[in-house]
Amino acid sequence: MAIQNRLTQMLRIEHPVLLAPMDLVSGGRLAAAVTQAGGLGLLGGGYGDADWIEREWDAAGNSRIGCGFITWSLAKSPGILKRALAHAPAAIMLSFGDPKPFAAQIHDSGALLVCQVQTVHQAHRAVEAEADVIVAQGTEAGGHGMSEPLFTLLPQVVDVCPNTPVVAAGGIADGRGFAAALMLGAQGVLMGTRFYASMEANGHPEAKQRIVAAEAGQTVRSIVFDLSRRNRWPAPYTGRLLRNRHAETWLGREDELATRMEDVSREYAEARERGDFDIAGVIAGEACALIHDIPPAGEIVERIVAEADQLFVRYHR
Amino acid sequence: MAIQNRLTQMLRIEHPVLLAPMDLVSGGRLAAAVTQAGGLGLLGGGYGDADWIEREWDAAGNSRIGCGFITWSLAKSPGILKRALAHAPAAIMLSFGDPKPFAAQIHDSGALLVCQVQTVHQAHRAVEAEADVIVAQGTEAGGHGMSEPLFTLLPQVVDVCPNTPVVAAGGIADGRGFAAALMLGAQGVLMGTRFYASMEANGHPEAKQRIVAAEAGQTVRSIVFDLSRRNRWPAPYTGRLLRNRHAETWLGREDELATRMEDVSREYAEARERGDFDIAGVIAGEACALIHDIPPAGEIVERIVAEADQLFVRYHR
Repeated sequence: MAIQNRLTQMLRIEHPVLLAPMDLVSGGRLAAAVTQAGGLGLLGGGYGDADWIEREWDAAGNSRIGCGFITWSLAKSPGILKRALAHAPAAIMLSFGDPKPFAAQIHDSGALLVCQVQTVHQAHRAVEAEADVIVAQGTEAGGHGMSEPLFTLLPQVVDVCPNTPVVAAGGIADGRGFAAALMLGAQGVLMGTRFYASMEANGHPEAKQRIVAAEAGQTVRSIVFDLSRRNRWPAPYTGRLLRNRHAETWLGREDELATRMEDVSREYAEARERGDFDIAGVIAGEACALIHDIPPAGEIVERIVAEADQLFVRYHR
Repeated sequence: MAIQNRLTQMLRIEHPVLLAPMDLVSGGRLAAAVTQAGGLGLLGGGYGDADWIEREWDAAGNSRIGCGFITWSLAKSPGILKRALAHAPAAIMLSFGDPKPFAAQIHDSGALLVCQVQTVHQAHRAVEAEADVIVAQGTEAGGHGMSEPLFTLLPQVVDVCPNTPVVAAGGIADGRGFAAALMLGAQGVLMGTRFYASMEANGHPEAKQRIVAAEAGQTVRSIVFDLSRRNRWPAPYTGRLLRNRHAETWLGREDELATRMEDVSREYAEARERGDFDIAGVIAGEACALIHDIPPAGEIVERIVAEADQLFVRYHR
């Protein structure tokens, strides 16, 4: 039996399972696959490459999808949002920075505004921006984020946003996490790393294999990778990635790295180019330790829904 | 309807809710109150003060309780464990360090061995020590711990310990957290901070008030407080406490603090003596943001059981 709630009604989806708009990894094929399985696919618009977005929207075919952006990238190239809205997205998800300057344009287009937050303070700001859905992202998440763990962040965000559906993100990879998020007050989940390790993701095969192979404690949240690609984010944002040789070399030596960015970034870019993930980073969250295969994305959606259902049956009162 | 499982059967309790053995805070009155409400109270034997333990065991009256110890304190004063076992405890909980040297003595006495772990690696060691129950403690927890968040640590520990009941600790303060922990595979929960803010806890009234007043993000995991009381723990253990003026003064300046421990520790000890919590630390976890009152401990047990039951009814399949 499908879980239906305000979130599924608003998004007009069968299962409250969203694809995290992972920059470049969440392409059209993956977004379409998640939507076709009853969830909602979100393209990883990220830093806002217009050509990439057009191409991936085409790749999604007629599937009803949305798109995610890093808010301050929209501020740099405002035309991007207009182009995305021209595709009649189901939702636009904004992460980091202030969503307010873009809220009216999104709402006027008929798309829903999804705002990702990492703190209770940001949740208040998202409500002020009239977010239709709030994503509470715990520190477990891969990629950029902050330090608060999902288990305590999520119920706090739910408590301060009583009129807005909250979606849990960070650390969710199976039906146990899905069910736990619902218990903590979420109406749905948004998964990144789990969908990275899917057949349709635009990720390097070696990166997917490393996610599958990763064990507990093999991710780290730091600024090493941002420094290494000359892409500094404002504190206190950090990025979670798999630990690799490059991370072990530079963790704890970030000040020195900052003075050697030119050399290191060249080496880093070359490593990315040739798929050398001892140097290039694999962006992944703590959920990687719970991921053991690379199935089709639709199967992932089916599995977590079925697993959660079994748990609800077991605890049937 | 009470949740009954292998954990409740083994511990012979009505509700799978355990009191964290908070050093000195979890005294006899509090342990007895949790047991009387259907859970299991554990005295905070901590560093192993024999007189304190005798006194608090008396204060618990005839209630069936257990006792927790920091494992390496037992190694320093082995007589303590024997004295605790003479009280016929329901369980002995060991945290940090290697439990194996004490396992046989505990089992031979008829008490159950409960081992707290912060990593999957430690969970394997607990199984090797023939732990009857494993507590998976997330980084959200107050006091000493490590860095892995509960949401991803817990299901991993459950997966590697299929024959041992796992209890979740860290970040749990209400029925939402209790229900979520069960979904992630735990058979019960162990709560510290929530019971610290109870009428029966041996805590300073001002410390309890600060826990109630604390908002999101007001705790921090660091070595500042250990350095300030000249009680260095081996890395990577750190202690989570409420942020206060002392923390703000020294966070990021730990190396300097280490060279000034003599002066600082004197000031710190005096502050503890006079109940000045701008300097002295209040040991509390991230769950403090979910705690808004100081009820009797029995009421806390009743509440979280009832709240979880309501959630299970709502998600009844």
